[in-house]
Amino acid sequence: MSVELVTKAALLKDLTGVLGATSSADKNDALLAVAKELLSEMSYILEENKKDLLAASEKGFPEALLDRLKLTEARIKDMSEALTQLTELKDPIGEVISETTRPNGLKLNKVRVPLGVIGMIYEARPNVTIDAASLCLKTGNAVLLRGSSSASHSNKALVKVIHKALEKTKIPKDAVQLLEDTSRETAEKLFTLNEYLDVLIPRGGANLIKSVMEKASVPVIETGVGNCHVFIDNTADKNMAIEVVTNAKTQRPSVCNAAETVIVHKDWAKSHLTDLVEHLVNHRVTLKGDHSATELDKRIVPATEEDWNMEYLDLILAVKIVSSVDEAINHIKRYGTKHSESIISRSEENVKQFMTYVDAAAVYHNASTRFTDGFEFGFGAEIGISTQKLHARGPMGLEALTSTKYLIYGEGQTK
Amino acid sequence: MSVELVTKAALLKDLTGVLGATSSADKNDALLAVAKELLSEMSYILEENKKDLLAASEKGFPEALLDRLKLTEARIKDMSEALTQLTELKDPIGEVISETTRPNGLKLNKVRVPLGVIGMIYEARPNVTIDAASLCLKTGNAVLLRGSSSASHSNKALVKVIHKALEKTKIPKDAVQLLEDTSRETAEKLFTLNEYLDVLIPRGGANLIKSVMEKASVPVIETGVGNCHVFIDNTADKNMAIEVVTNAKTQRPSVCNAAETVIVHKDWAKSHLTDLVEHLVNHRVTLKGDHSATELDKRIVPATEEDWNMEYLDLILAVKIVSSVDEAINHIKRYGTKHSESIISRSEENVKQFMTYVDAAAVYHNASTRFTDGFEFGFGAEIGISTQKLHARGPMGLEALTSTKYLIYGEGQTK
Repeated sequence: MSVELVTKAALLKDLTGVLGATSSADKNDALLAVAKELLSEMSYILEENKKDLLAASEKGFPEALLDRLKLTEARIKDMSEALTQLTELKDPIGEVISETTRPNGLKLNKVRVPLGVIGMIYEARPNVTIDAASLCLKTGNAVLLRGSSSASHSNKALVKVIHKALEKTKIPKDAVQLLEDTSRETAEKLFTLNEYLDVLIPRGGANLIKSVMEKASVPVIETGVGNCHVFIDNTADKNMAIEVVTNAKTQRPSVCNAAETVIVHKDWAKSHLTDLVEHLVNHRVTLKGDHSATELDKRIVPATEEDWNMEYLDLILAVKIVSSVDEAINHIKRYGTKHSESIISRSEENVKQFMTYVDAAAVYHNASTRFTDGFEFGFGAEIGISTQKLHARGPMGLEALTSTKYLIYGEGQTK
Repeated sequence: MSVELVTKAALLKDLTGVLGATSSADKNDALLAVAKELLSEMSYILEENKKDLLAASEKGFPEALLDRLKLTEARIKDMSEALTQLTELKDPIGEVISETTRPNGLKLNKVRVPLGVIGMIYEARPNVTIDAASLCLKTGNAVLLRGSSSASHSNKALVKVIHKALEKTKIPKDAVQLLEDTSRETAEKLFTLNEYLDVLIPRGGANLIKSVMEKASVPVIETGVGNCHVFIDNTADKNMAIEVVTNAKTQRPSVCNAAETVIVHKDWAKSHLTDLVEHLVNHRVTLKGDHSATELDKRIVPATEEDWNMEYLDLILAVKIVSSVDEAINHIKRYGTKHSESIISRSEENVKQFMTYVDAAAVYHNASTRFTDGFEFGFGAEIGISTQKLHARGPMGLEALTSTKYLIYGEGQTK
């Protein structure tokens, strides 16, 4: 067992009581201190980030990954700004959710409390370090950060800056800990550290999340894998359908709420598929379709069974032709990841059926799947998008980082 | 892979859409039909239960386990009555939890939906079969029941009765499935059946729950292990403290919300420990204490480190003497299972400190830990008591068997 892991986890567990009892004002002071420190330590952070970037490009990281790893002056300013905005959000901790008096006189208050110690496991995106630390600070949680070895210098620098800032505040700096040992063995130890951790939140690709789900005994919040569909019903407005699908596929293909398959009703396809394809091809999208789709437009290449399961995260879109809303719902049931699904339709009946029977965190009518996001939903923050059904579903804001506790006041009751 | 397991799980998954869309009236009709069928099939159920009882007593099951396994006319009547009462509870499904309109005109509704397919794993208590099936029917969930082999005849009979009743209603009988293969291998397959199951709820002893937590990749709701404490502060009223501790220990020692350790402030102990011991001994309680406790009363035998971790579930109580509320809080932090904790005190300050810093599902002031129960809390039903912090904490009623879903209505929005 890694000494670093256990020492840090125990330190975090020790702080949970104090953090849970910290006032909103003190927590906001801490966030502002970190926001300020990020700006004054900008050149140090960029310097450390360069070391990671250099190593990553030597290892031949693809452009998209290098971009995720990269910090810039503008990105650090954005982080700092986000921290300042976070102070304006309502602190969920201490909220009395319900207050009842039982027939025997017991007073039963359900109050909101922090989760305790949160383990964040994520890939080479240093912005997650600041995101996770700040959301945990705001909600009185202690956090153990386990980032990617490829972002080690950046993460160490950022946590050093956080610690420097917290030393000037009432929040103990040890409330935010970075696991410097980024070996896979130590990560797997983290998965079963039930004695110290209350929850694990993995953020990253499908493999990372699958591995945590399979191996962890600590409760996990599953985030983010999105095989999202847009279904174009036979009654769909042509231009609306084309615009929504184009947006859902192309606006930012690398994210989980981007569409991966368009399901098209055969009647709509007969009249308009060629126009949709024209539009998508102009946006540099490669199309892969079933037999009916390739028959209708030769620019669509044949799809294989594998394609229906793909989270391409790229300018590729699968095209499935169906005969009914039922067939669309069944396709989504079979291949979807319960993230975000959309129907474009003018039929009240079909919309109702789709929205009732499609099982996903977010189901849209006449809108792009790209809206599944904590900021778009008005939460003011986001720790990830839950695709499981326990605890939190869909974009997770501050409330997802809380639990509850019953406080019961009596006068000696035993019955 | 067990064919039975996969066939039944797939059948359940197929039904989730229909069950989620079923009206409250149809669900209540189904509950009443089961309530009625239980009464008319009483002799058949008792006959099958006898087979289990006979086999269990031949295997030398202890009295407490035989009692849990046993069905009687009165117990079946109680089950039937509970089903009828369940129809009077509000159906949580379909409730609109929040309704907002975003600046871009998107209408965002958060609605309550079933979890989907629930896997219940439990020990030789046939009443759980009816409990779980009825709560799942009420909340539109499909349920896969995996009971103990020792209760096989009883469980099969009860599910047969449920199916017979459901055939007379609009709910497909396949919504409730019993796994007849009760081998450990098949149970472990269930743990990783993420394709079909949305959640696993283990109900039973510490070992069962630990095994599910460790091996499952399906999200688990941890229930029930309770190493509960009552802390008698130096300002505690003598009689109240004695009555609460006696109730918490002796009223029903075999359940998770019974107290396992009494923590006593040394000043209170000096004046009153002997009276407390006297009272408990009269209730046939065996006491095991630390050095200070055994010094104060010779009827207390020495405790070992192991005792502080014990969920005795028996008429045994550990006694720990402390010098401050802080020391009591730290003992609970170290040995508690975050279930139910109580302070008996007249000091506002100490009560505040205890209730803020003790991390448990239910924290009591001047009341017995025995109140941690869905019925006592006024939920009208209980599927178990969650001791984890995700999703649901403390007694779980109908709401704990639900998730949420965002329904978003647009007019073609892409930004």
